[in-house]
This record gives sequence, C-alpha cells and structure tokens, in this order.
Amino acid sequence: MNVQPKRNSLVPETVTTGPLTGSRKVYYSPADKPEVRVPFREICLSDPNEPPVRVYDASGPYTEVDPGIDLAKGLTSARPWLASRDGLEAYEGRSVRPEDNGDVTGDKLVPPCPANRKPLRGQDGKLVTQYEFARAGIITEEMIYVAHRENLGREQMVADAEATIADGESFGADIPAFVTPEFVRDEIAKGRAIIPCNINHPELEPMIIGRNFLVKVNANIGNSAVTSSVAEEVEKMVWSTRWGADTVMDLSTGRNIHNIRDWILRNSPVPIGTVPIYQALEKVGGDPIKLTWEIFRDTLIEQAEQGVDYFTIHAGVRLAYVPLTAKRVTGIVSRGGSIMARWCLAHHQESFLYTHFEEICDIMRKYDISFSLGDGLRPGSGADANDRAQFAELETLGELTKIAWEKGCQVMIEGPGHVPMHKIKINMEKQLKECHEAPFYTLGPLTTDIAPGYDHITSGIGAAMIGWFGCAMLCYVTPKEHLGLPDRDDVKTGVITYRIAAHAGDLAKGHPAAHIRDDALSRARFDFRWEDQFNLGLDPDTAREYHDETMPKDAHKVAHFCSMCGPKFCSMKITQDLRTEVNAMLENEKAVFEGMAEKSKEFLDGGAKLYVKS
Amino acid sequence: MNVQPKRNSLVPETVTTGPLTGSRKVYYSPADKPEVRVPFREICLSDPNEPPVRVYDASGPYTEVDPGIDLAKGLTSARPWLASRDGLEAYEGRSVRPEDNGDVTGDKLVPPCPANRKPLRGQDGKLVTQYEFARAGIITEEMIYVAHRENLGREQMVADAEATIADGESFGADIPAFVTPEFVRDEIAKGRAIIPCNINHPELEPMIIGRNFLVKVNANIGNSAVTSSVAEEVEKMVWSTRWGADTVMDLSTGRNIHNIRDWILRNSPVPIGTVPIYQALEKVGGDPIKLTWEIFRDTLIEQAEQGVDYFTIHAGVRLAYVPLTAKRVTGIVSRGGSIMARWCLAHHQESFLYTHFEEICDIMRKYDISFSLGDGLRPGSGADANDRAQFAELETLGELTKIAWEKGCQVMIEGPGHVPMHKIKINMEKQLKECHEAPFYTLGPLTTDIAPGYDHITSGIGAAMIGWFGCAMLCYVTPKEHLGLPDRDDVKTGVITYRIAAHAGDLAKGHPAAHIRDDALSRARFDFRWEDQFNLGLDPDTAREYHDETMPKDAHKVAHFCSMCGPKFCSMKITQDLRTEVNAMLENEKAVFEGMAEKSKEFLDGGAKLYVKS
Repeated sequence: MNVQPKRNSLVPETVTTGPLTGSRKVYYSPADKPEVRVPFREICLSDPNEPPVRVYDASGPYTEVDPGIDLAKGLTSARPWLASRDGLEAYEGRSVRPEDNGDVTGDKLVPPCPANRKPLRGQDGKLVTQYEFARAGIITEEMIYVAHRENLGREQMVADAEATIADGESFGADIPAFVTPEFVRDEIAKGRAIIPCNINHPELEPMIIGRNFLVKVNANIGNSAVTSSVAEEVEKMVWSTRWGADTVMDLSTGRNIHNIRDWILRNSPVPIGTVPIYQALEKVGGDPIKLTWEIFRDTLIEQAEQGVDYFTIHAGVRLAYVPLTAKRVTGIVSRGGSIMARWCLAHHQESFLYTHFEEICDIMRKYDISFSLGDGLRPGSGADANDRAQFAELETLGELTKIAWEKGCQVMIEGPGHVPMHKIKINMEKQLKECHEAPFYTLGPLTTDIAPGYDHITSGIGAAMIGWFGCAMLCYVTPKEHLGLPDRDDVKTGVITYRIAAHAGDLAKGHPAAHIRDDALSRARFDFRWEDQFNLGLDPDTAREYHDETMPKDAHKVAHFCSMCGPKFCSMKITQDLRTEVNAMLENEKAVFEGMAEKSKEFLDGGAKLYVKS
Repeated sequence: MNVQPKRNSLVPETVTTGPLTGSRKVYYSPADKPEVRVPFREICLSDPNEPPVRVYDASGPYTEVDPGIDLAKGLTSARPWLASRDGLEAYEGRSVRPEDNGDVTGDKLVPPCPANRKPLRGQDGKLVTQYEFARAGIITEEMIYVAHRENLGREQMVADAEATIADGESFGADIPAFVTPEFVRDEIAKGRAIIPCNINHPELEPMIIGRNFLVKVNANIGNSAVTSSVAEEVEKMVWSTRWGADTVMDLSTGRNIHNIRDWILRNSPVPIGTVPIYQALEKVGGDPIKLTWEIFRDTLIEQAEQGVDYFTIHAGVRLAYVPLTAKRVTGIVSRGGSIMARWCLAHHQESFLYTHFEEICDIMRKYDISFSLGDGLRPGSGADANDRAQFAELETLGELTKIAWEKGCQVMIEGPGHVPMHKIKINMEKQLKECHEAPFYTLGPLTTDIAPGYDHITSGIGAAMIGWFGCAMLCYVTPKEHLGLPDRDDVKTGVITYRIAAHAGDLAKGHPAAHIRDDALSRARFDFRWEDQFNLGLDPDTAREYHDETMPKDAHKVAHFCSMCGPKFCSMKITQDLRTEVNAMLENEKAVFEGMAEKSKEFLDGGAKLYVKS
C-alpha cells in the first residue's frame, strides 16, 4: 500500500493506492461482453490445497498494482457502452455560478476538476433509467455487470446452494442460489432493487442495492464549515472504498461544495449520493426560511449534470407532521428534516419537496438518479423510536415511492437512526409493507444512547440485526458520531464495523456465498496459517499488527500458538494433537463409532444422552 | 484519575485510582443494616433541573476521591457480617507448595500478598452457600445488598414501572418493577440466579447474576507463559472494573500463578473466577495426559482457600463426545475442553471431572464457590455452531446442574463462542430448557469469523442479542482475541463494548431502570450540554477527547453545534429554533392541533394518512 501524505493544498494530488495485503485484483468478463469488466479481489492462500478466496471488491482501480492514477484526469470509464446508448444526448450544461462554491474567490477557491466534460441527458420518450429498461424487459449492461459481481466465484457451488441457503432465516427475502441478469432485471422492475448510476458518472462500477442481494454499506464523507479540505475528502472517498464502502455520500456543507464534488465524482468508482438541500441552503446564506423551489430545482440540475448517483430528498417531512415532534426528547435530528420543518412552519405551507415531487422525478429520471427518500423525522434517541412522527413520514414515503416509479425512477427508502433492539424488526416490516418492498437504507440503528465515542458499536449491533431482517444498505456510523467530523482512522473503523454488520446479516440470511470466507479463515486459524488468517480478515494490517505486538518474528507466523494462551495452553494445538488420536480411534473402532448412536451406552456410565434429538 | 505508571517489579505497588470524570461515589445503607454499604456512582449534571443520574458501580473503593489503597494490605472487608456468621470455622489451610507457583524461585518468585489470612470453611451440617440459605427461606446480608444494588435509584419510579416494563420484549424473563431481598432469595432458591461469593473473599461487594436482573459483564485477565507481570494483572483487574466489569476471570497460565492470584483476590471488589484445570496442568508440566483427580482436587482446595468465587469446571466434556468433534472445522477451541478431551482419549476413560463431580460439589459447597459449568465443546467457528458435540455437552451440563443443586451449590452455565445471528436464539432457549433456568454465561458469541482485530465487535453484536434473549452474564472479547494477550487499552475497549451490549440487552428486555441514563444523555445532547453528554457516557474521557480534537476551547463546551455539521447545519440547533415556533403554533392553534387526527385533511392536500393505525 502506498500511503500518501495528507495535503491541504487546493488541488488533490495523491491518494492511497496499491493492493490490500495478500490480495490481488482480478477482472471477469462474460465471453460475449468483453466491455463488462467485473472486479474482484482474490485472497491468495499459502496452503496449495486451499483455493484462493474471491471477495466482493468496491475499491476500484486504486487497488491495482500500478493503477496510474491521475486525479486531474479522473478514472477511465467503467461503462464504455454509455457512449453509444440510444436515447442519451450531450448538451451545454448549466454554467457554474459563484454561489455554487459559496462565493469563494481567489486563492480560497478549489479549482474545478479538469476531467469535467459536457453533460448527458435522457431524451424525451426514450428509455433512460434502469427501472424503465427493466420494466420494458430489457437487460442492460449494468444488470449483467451486477449479476456477475454478486455471484463472486460461486458458479461452481450452485449444486450445493440449496442446502446452504436452508441454513439461514431470511424473513421472506428471496435470495437465489445463483444471480442471473434476468433475476436482476426482474428485481429492478419490481422496485425491489436499484442500480444507482447517473449517466453522467461513467467512472462508476455498477452495484446493486436490494434485499435479495449482498447487504451493502455506505460511508459518509464531506467537509463542514469547521474543518476539512478537498484533498482530504477525495482521499476519504478512496480510503473508505478501499475498506469496503459500496457507496459514498458526500455531505459537504462548507465552501467549495461544487468543485469538491467535481473531484470526488471524476475519481469515484462507487455511486455518490448527496443531500441537495444542503447546498441549496448554502446558496441562501444558511437561512432555511429563504429556501425556494427554484433554488432547490437549480441545485438538482447542477448536481445531476456533475453525475451524482442518488439524491436524498426529504419529501416526507410534511407540514402537518412537524407538531408531532414537539414532545420528543430529541426533536428532529435529520439535518434535511429540520431544514424543511423550519421552512414549512415559517411559511405555514406544505413542503415544496412534496408539492413539487413530480417535477423532481422528471429531473431525476433524465439522468437516472435514484431517489433515496429521506427520513427527516427519524428518531434521535431511543426514547423517540417508532413514534407517530417517524411512522407518519414512512407512510408518506410509501406514497411517494409509487409516484417515483410511475415517473420511471429508481427508489430506495432511508430509515433510522436510534432504535432499541426490540423495536428494530417492526421498522423493517413496516418499511416493506408501506413502501412496497423498495430497498431500505438505514443509519445504524443505534441500540443505546449511552456511549458517545463508541457509536460505531452501538449502531453496528442494530445494523447487523436490520441487515439480517432485510435492510439492503447500511449507512455507517463512525466513532466520532455526535462529537465531531470523522478523520481517516474513524472512516476506516466505521467501514470495517459496518462490513462486519453487513456480513453477519448475509450469513444469517443464508446468503449462499457468505460463509465461504468465514470457513476459509476458520481453517487457516485451525491450521495456524497466521498470514492466511490475517489476509482473509477484513483488515489484514491491523490483525498482523496486533499479533506482532507480542510475537513479531517471522518464525511466529507459523508458530502453533499465540501470546494469548502460550504454547502449552493453545486449545487448537492440543486439539490438533488430539485429532490424530481421534482419527486413529475412529479408524480402529469404526464399527463402534459408526454405530455410536445406538451403542452410546457402551461408552457412557450414566443416563446421559449422547445425541440431541433432532 | 490518577493513572499510575506500569511497573514490572515483582510486587505490585500502585493502580489507577480516583473518580470517573464527572462522577462521585455514594453509598447507600438500609436503615436497619448499616453494615450493608451499597456503592453507586452518581453522575452530576450541570442543569439544576436535571437530577443526578445514579448508575451501577462495580469499581470498588478505587474510584473514591482518596481511597488510600495499599495493595499489600488488601481491601477492607465489604462483608463484615461474615466474621460472625454461624457455621463458618477458621482452620490451618493447605501450605503453599513450590509447584503452585510453577517451581519459580529466588528473584523470579512473586512474593505472597501480605494480606493473606487463615482460611474459613463451612462446618458440616450448617448452611453455607447462598443457595442453601435461600432454600431454607433465609435472607442473607448478601441478598439484601444485591437487592438495593440492582434497584439503583428507582424507588421513586416504582409507580411508573409497569408502563415502562411493557416497553420491552423479555422472552419470558420475569423482571420485577422493584427488586426486594425476598425476590432475590426466591430467584436463588429456584436456581435462576447466583451470588458468587466465596467465604474467603470478604473484600467482595456482592453482586447477582440472573436473567431477571441487570445483564452483567465479565472481563478475562491473566498472564500467559509468553507475557505479562503481576503488577500488570492487578492493574488490569482494577482497570477493568473501573470501566464496568462485574466479575473478573483470572486465566493466568504462566508462572507465579498462585501468588498472582493472591494479590488479585485481596484487592478485588468483584467476584474472581478461575479455571482450576489450567493450574493443575501447570503442575504436571503441561502434559494433559499426566493429570490426575488428586492433583485437580488439591488445586481446587488451594484456590478455594484463597477465595476464588467461581470455578469453571469442564465436567461436560465426556469421552463419548470427543469423536463428535472430529469433523469440525475448528475442533475443540476451549482450552479446558481440549485438555480434558486429550486426557479422556489418551486414557480411554470417562473424564475425572465427571466421575468425581459429587466430590467437586462437596468441596465447592464448603466455601460457597459457584459452579460455572464450562462449555468445553463450544464451537470455534460459525461452521461448527449448534452442532451435536455442543448440544450433547449442554444436556450433560443440565444433568450436572441438578446434582450441584442437590449438593447445595450455586450454578451457572457457560455458552458459546462463535454463532451466526440466526442460530443464537436457539442457544438461549435450549440452555434454559436443558439447564432448568440456571443463569447462562456466554462468550460473545461472535457472529462472523472474518474480522480478526475486531472481534470485540463481531462478538458484541451476538452478546447484545443473547443478553436480550436472556443471557445473564456476557464474557467480554477484546480486539486482540485470536491474536495475542490483551493490554490495558484492549481491556478497556472490551469492557466498554460489552457494557454497550449488556445495556442494549437491558433496554430491549424492558428493564425498568435501563432507559433513565439514555434519556438523560439524550436530553443533554439536545440541550448542547456537552460536558453532561460526555459524563453520562460509558467513557467520558474518550468522548471529550474526540470532541476536543476539532473544538478544544472551553467555549465550545456550550456551543450549539459541533464540527460534524458546523453551526448552520446542526439539526438540533435548527430544531431548537423550531421548537419555539412549534410551541407558539401549538398554543395559537390549539384547537386545530388538538383535533388534528380528525382534521388532518385541513393540512394535507393529498390522501396521506397523518396518524399510523395502532
């Protein structure tokens, strides 16, 4: 790994590149679609009897051996087919205005990314969005791409898949043994999955978000008025995907918003989401009351042309719901929600996001920007969980989902927040019902409020559970939540914690590919292949560092113990000695042990049962 | 906090002392029992309208302002009534032998703790254990102590308790609105709870472990042959209870075991558990095959006289179960389990822990040492979870529980280990059924195997869930699990993670006192009382440090924003501005809003429902 120094210059120059320790990047293309190049990460193992383990890889070209990154040029298109897709037209886009960057000038202004190009838009009457293609029965390259991506290396295990799936509880999810492009199309057509992919973001490697696919993780980045720079934000995007973020939300609210977003988008292999109301608010000097539909509309187009893949739109915060939050312990804790609530109340008018919702759909459809319908009234404390305000909004999001689908848009739904464990499942069930199975995308939820500094953990618990119950994407929470802006270490901790949650969810749902990595790591652990154990983990560097604190020598990497128990007390060591004996015993006394269920009395002197009743 | 330098001398001299930031220690005594001094920690808040929040405090005298600790003298007795309890007799204990300390001599030998005294034992025919007292209908001082301890400050909220309890799902647990000494006695008599409290550990502040009480956390400490010293281990004990460990297991396996245990016990305010087979193995040079009942028996008495409060006894690892582990991915991963399995197989005999179980009970009863029936065949990987070996052993633990009860002993049951989420609940259900509701005490479980370096998190997820389902105590897992011996920072991270899990479990079960702290912290958060927010958290120092990284000034401690969102985008700030308006609106339009359910159409232009159907 080439760790690059942080720079605070106005132009980002370098980011972290190189493979993860012990891994190499591989690409797979279907025979008839060489332009579809699906990336995987292959973890190579030291035991020749162990096949390499292929894992999902969201990190883009940055983890190639010599990626030749030039941030000013941006990434090469991962979707070359877009250039010739029927129905798209290039046009002179909206000109950048001083207010787009907070009226910053001179040597405070981050320059635009030189890789910018003319925007594309969908022509009227043509199919543009993945939803429209899916409804028309057309399988796009993006659908083929994600089908292969979701399958990892599991062609060879299809035969075993049925038995494997049975070992899980999916709560009604319908995870196939093997994902086909047609399955992907069908799920998108039903509104149960989305491929967020703005036609102006060709650098994006397509990925799918839906209950019947692998659980995904989003990382939030973004500067605030108080801290951070463009170089740091681009690095955070690269850094978060390196550790497994499937999408990134740029929640910048300070100056230079437009141009920072330029640099992020031109260099991002993952979908980028934003909350356009943040920038709209900047344009009116930070006073929610001064917001107008026109300013918001203009901001949507501005960001659409840049290539943002999904927009959080808080259209469910209706005037009548605001008073429902009056007696809450923590009021409204969504930034977007509080902005809109303030606007509604000040003007005593219905939210313009709600009244102009169809126009918003028309804009987003033109670029295939997915909706992430925001939960502006999500609870900010366990005490406020599952209250009337929250669920009233969720019902409205269900209504809006149908409208967006009618308009041809892809939709997912955002969810809480702060919810104690016993109230999590009802959130998932209600979301599926009210929102017609559109994918759910939740923040945590945090299962207790008493651990500031550890909210990646309080929320990781809730995230794992709701991922299991059917949530399609988990928005990470970092250790800095409630306290400050996350730095590079916090981003990594947040992403890894959420990869744990997502994977624990996949395992519990019975996803047919999920246990392959667990089993490979467990075998490495039992065989004392320390390097394999590290490399199969989510964070090989930290695992190695922890091990090496007490046993740093190369020889220790094949030692049949670690410092936790020492050589005499290593259960695995003892069991390995034992195994030889057990095998000999099994061999010698085959007849006895094969018939053990019946003959257990020969071995037991009491009345104990040997086998559990099935 | 007085952080003391680590010392590697042979005699521990200093440990960390002083109150947690923002807290003070208080003691409560019932009017008629001044010798029962129940400790609490009171978190004082800056808002005069907010009462101080009283929390459970396992940290002992170390967190007093000026505790006057002298490790060589040990702690003052917290159970002065023991000195006059009928049925106990002092006697000349077993002499310490060279092999008790691994035959260490000269300047490598840790000296015994000078605070040692003559051991006590129960007389034949007298009541000794809490279980025996409870069965006889007698309420002990220990029962009174834990009743008050469990109630925290909730006398005043009994009236509200019913409504509060209803907001939880306890899966059949029977948590009372208010804990009485009689309730404690009854739970112990039913075998559903234990108070681990060796009569030779008077320094112990009694605590209770049971499904109908607050979920408890255990921290493992102990040196290994590879690393650590007595000073570090005593500090780890003090340090882990400072952050909330309710019991501590000393799993030392290196040299000086006996004398390190001396120092720990004489200075420990919490129950100390051990796995006596570890020391027995040291006495036979580390070869499991050389173990004998006589050596094990002698070790039990040795540790009993020192004051160990609970013993892990792997009596469920029977000869006939060993072959059931032959095809596992990770064999036997319990150290004690693998030792006993190796012994059984080498001798082709039933385990001496099983054949001598009644004699073990007789010894443990004499000192009121609680059983922690060990799960020697717990799974070491998700692949092995809930298999025949694991459940066969659990059934045997159920048998043994009944025998131990008949012998007058207190019993809890140890559980896994590595279990994916969908297989956790069956573990709890099966344990309750097979083991007749004896308290369950689990390690994690880890919900995935793929994150070495982060197993406090993979397991914290499982721990929170099983705590909710009814597990009485959660054994922590640190970030070093599988990789090395935890240091001071790892211990803290492990304890805090598990306090989160335990508390999330209490909240979800509907424990009537659990939400008080969450709500107080949420109010502090919403009011921008930053210091209160930090101090109400599980780790005030880390929360403050994270906040201060970007906003270090004193003025920032009352700022109505943090660096995460900055001043314009702080939802709580906006909502506070909003709240004034909402209140004015509610006042002005009272008639409208009071009748909003009916009149919602006046506010809504579509067909949206304002209220959720209940």
